[in-house]
Amino acid sequence: MKAIGFKTSQEIENKESLIEFNIQKPKAKDFDIVIKVSAVSMNPVDTKVRANAAKDIILDEPKILGYDAVGIVDEIGEHITNFKIGDRVFYAGDVSKNGSNSQFQLIDSRIVALAPTSLKDDEAAALPLTSLTAWEAMFDRMNINKNDKKTILIIGGAGGVGSIATQIAKESTNLTVIATASREETISWCKKMGADYVVNHKDLVNSVKNTGFETVDYIFNVANTEIHWDAMAELIAPQGKICSIVDAEIPVDINKLKSKSVTFIWEFMFTRPMFNTNDIEKQGEILSEIATLVDGGKIKTTLSKTFQGFNVENIKDAHKLSESGKAIGKIAIQF
Amino acid sequence: MKAIGFKTSQEIENKESLIEFNIQKPKAKDFDIVIKVSAVSMNPVDTKVRANAAKDIILDEPKILGYDAVGIVDEIGEHITNFKIGDRVFYAGDVSKNGSNSQFQLIDSRIVALAPTSLKDDEAAALPLTSLTAWEAMFDRMNINKNDKKTILIIGGAGGVGSIATQIAKESTNLTVIATASREETISWCKKMGADYVVNHKDLVNSVKNTGFETVDYIFNVANTEIHWDAMAELIAPQGKICSIVDAEIPVDINKLKSKSVTFIWEFMFTRPMFNTNDIEKQGEILSEIATLVDGGKIKTTLSKTFQGFNVENIKDAHKLSESGKAIGKIAIQF
Repeated sequence: MKAIGFKTSQEIENKESLIEFNIQKPKAKDFDIVIKVSAVSMNPVDTKVRANAAKDIILDEPKILGYDAVGIVDEIGEHITNFKIGDRVFYAGDVSKNGSNSQFQLIDSRIVALAPTSLKDDEAAALPLTSLTAWEAMFDRMNINKNDKKTILIIGGAGGVGSIATQIAKESTNLTVIATASREETISWCKKMGADYVVNHKDLVNSVKNTGFETVDYIFNVANTEIHWDAMAELIAPQGKICSIVDAEIPVDINKLKSKSVTFIWEFMFTRPMFNTNDIEKQGEILSEIATLVDGGKIKTTLSKTFQGFNVENIKDAHKLSESGKAIGKIAIQF
Repeated sequence: MKAIGFKTSQEIENKESLIEFNIQKPKAKDFDIVIKVSAVSMNPVDTKVRANAAKDIILDEPKILGYDAVGIVDEIGEHITNFKIGDRVFYAGDVSKNGSNSQFQLIDSRIVALAPTSLKDDEAAALPLTSLTAWEAMFDRMNINKNDKKTILIIGGAGGVGSIATQIAKESTNLTVIATASREETISWCKKMGADYVVNHKDLVNSVKNTGFETVDYIFNVANTEIHWDAMAELIAPQGKICSIVDAEIPVDINKLKSKSVTFIWEFMFTRPMFNTNDIEKQGEILSEIATLVDGGKIKTTLSKTFQGFNVENIKDAHKLSESGKAIGKIAIQF
């Protein structure tokens, strides 16, 4: 079967940055299923893995990227009872295994759910990784009570995770959502996602306070941890919680969070599959919940751009657009 | 009335390090009560505030230390319904206000509870700050479910907070407790407090793994944040929680906690009173619960040494013993 990946880390313009190759189609066993992939979507993790996974080395086997897919169940392992061949499913996957930029993909059925029936392949492929990240951050990490009338600041409101986090917060909680954006088109996008307030992250403390909130109960940082650290320390309420998904590039001063007894939490969507935690099936359940919200008209896809055709050129173009930092919402590739 | 405090930060041997002086007895109003103090106890915060609060300056008014007391209600504010004059109470207090090293102390009644009737003054004075810290850390910060059969590592098992945390964990939860200690007498003390395993913090990763646990679900660090950071990152389970009460003296690498989606939480016992949070009365409730556990024979005082008499010499001796790092459990001063 055809797959696209890399054997060495290169700038995207380099001929070797992404290559097409053939590998054996995988076989399903135990809790695994084989999916015939129909569409995938891009996430920052794709370009980060490409940039960091094979620096100064050449891998023996190409690394296959892609951590968001929609497809049809092609084969099931012997323990599978909740899926059958022909089901249309969506899932994110496991960064430590082969990704979805491949005609067929082997995946643990416990992190898979039936895809929303109301969305086309590319629209549905835009959702799994960002939805899982946002949902886990808010409900499994920050442990937000859906009835609490509290406030959340989402730093990076117009990106893939910020866009879906805003929608989930507005649809599934009583939170007031303050999202950050700085360009005209991203501000307008954040409002479309349902943000109650859109503020500029370039003067974060003052722009949040100008909304009338002196502090916020929760901060979900999907943009940059070190740049916003001091502002987050100032804005977070006593006993508040900050969740981030972005590595700090330089050390941050954790002591700044102490006097307010603040909680700092990492959300990494691949923790459950990578460590095969005993609650791994929670990811399948979250995706089912997302599909229900989508099909009930409560949540919209965050797709903004689709490339037609599974080929190196399109995957490269998607990487370029993602690396530009100018993308709004999500980028998909229809196979 | 007589009080003991300092106007300038000095080594404890210096004549000016702690001084006796007279100030006006406080008046109770609103939610405040005035307490005639009977006994106080020492905490590391006393020596830290003395060392840091008046460096290179001389305060106009002396700073009164002491954040653990037992005493008799002497006067009540007009909103007080749950205490009456003559009640014997215990409390920690608020580091931003005058402390308990004083004949009388003004205190917010919402952070006060009736003292355990089965304990003498010094025995009860040993408990509030450490109990509040341990309780808040386990139940309000790490949100430990009392029925979960999980594992907690308490780094610094023989100190004031570690001693009471071990007892509360054993009495009020189903946690397995692994406490750290390295000297013969501290190991024996930790076992007396109820620890299931006592391990050496000098080789933390291996000594924990030697108990048969590859990872732990919770870590409560009351000893040193930066020294144990890497070991904590290695030992914590995926999706586990680390709570610390000790400032990091050098930057730590928070990224080490990311792949496991770990939660890092500060517990600072003074957050609720200092910020007058809308759940400030939780501290009075926790102390009531502690008194009930003590009077029911479920929790023992962690007092190990009492100085008799409220005078500068005794307070200085208590500071010296605390600063030595060799103290086990708590040190009290009986007035």
